[in-house]
Amino acid sequence: MKADKIPDIIVGRLPVYLRALQRMADNGLKTTSSQELGEHVGISAAQIRKDISQFGDFGKQGTGYSIAYLLDKLREILKVDRIWDVALVGAGDMGHALANYQGFENRGFRIAMIFDADSTKVGEKIGEFVVEDAEKIAEKIKSAGIKIAMLTVPASAAQSVADKLIQAGVRAILNYAPISLTVPNNVKVQYIDPSTHLQRMTYYL
Amino acid sequence: MKADKIPDIIVGRLPVYLRALQRMADNGLKTTSSQELGEHVGISAAQIRKDISQFGDFGKQGTGYSIAYLLDKLREILKVDRIWDVALVGAGDMGHALANYQGFENRGFRIAMIFDADSTKVGEKIGEFVVEDAEKIAEKIKSAGIKIAMLTVPASAAQSVADKLIQAGVRAILNYAPISLTVPNNVKVQYIDPSTHLQRMTYYL
Repeated sequence: MKADKIPDIIVGRLPVYLRALQRMADNGLKTTSSQELGEHVGISAAQIRKDISQFGDFGKQGTGYSIAYLLDKLREILKVDRIWDVALVGAGDMGHALANYQGFENRGFRIAMIFDADSTKVGEKIGEFVVEDAEKIAEKIKSAGIKIAMLTVPASAAQSVADKLIQAGVRAILNYAPISLTVPNNVKVQYIDPSTHLQRMTYYL
Repeated sequence: MKADKIPDIIVGRLPVYLRALQRMADNGLKTTSSQELGEHVGISAAQIRKDISQFGDFGKQGTGYSIAYLLDKLREILKVDRIWDVALVGAGDMGHALANYQGFENRGFRIAMIFDADSTKVGEKIGEFVVEDAEKIAEKIKSAGIKIAMLTVPASAAQSVADKLIQAGVRAILNYAPISLTVPNNVKVQYIDPSTHLQRMTYYL
């Protein structure tokens, strides 16, 4: 099946399967079933089988999935069988937390550079990084060939920074600024905004 | 239409509309159209009209939506026409960033208490908060009647902390730990895991 034919909602579940399988592997498990995986991620076994079968025939009738094999396949499908350099723009509290975050390890990403427009932050050390001047975004990102960025700037600055990143070659933006971005069709955006996540739950309270 | 009949995918878009409308109001706008709102959030005008009409008839043919009125209605629907106290568990980097985060203001939430299991963190001041011992979660949350929690603990601790929170009356958990939680049907969970968001985009690169 051609990559662009798979619904994005299915693509969105693969990282959740990958995470759960990685955890099983870390716990020493070798094989699993769609039933067992389903219990870990709160998704039905039928849905999991259907989702995974979109990409190939990775399980054996009766014996289930080899965790190592399925991990390899999912990493390949999601293109995280490599390490992607990520640019972080915004060295505030959230930027600091992300710069120190251990959760990118073994999941396909590493922060490669950190920028901020605030001259009092430029030159600051965060872990192994030195915060660079946001003026250099275009030059640095272009020459490093970086395709992925995380935005932790104020909402008022987010669109103009995104425009600059896209101009420099970025094709995927994880946006922590609480504002929707307008981007060309060939650029992906994902949003992390704790208030919208919370509001989606208060509806049910 | 009964609240529990509305698909969650529609509920999930309402906070995005709310955020964009709030921004329009902040910019002094009084009325908008589904067309204009759609351009801000990257969703078609038809979809927006359809989503909003699930909850009532809030626009006028030809004149569009009153922003103030639609804001009121959306806040009422999402139950953020009040302020919810939120418990934060985990006073690491991410916990600090959330404790200092300004983005909950005017969006229906305020952090009311912060817990950590690490005795070296208990008693620490973060902004206006003093980190409390995670041993006191049950007692404090029950007596305050808190229904919402944010989890920024390590993956290995997340399920047991979630169990404790639910036992104490929490019904909505925003989980930053990179692990799927198992919760009863009457509890909602939303996940924030930057690596899964990034992996959902690398698929397309």
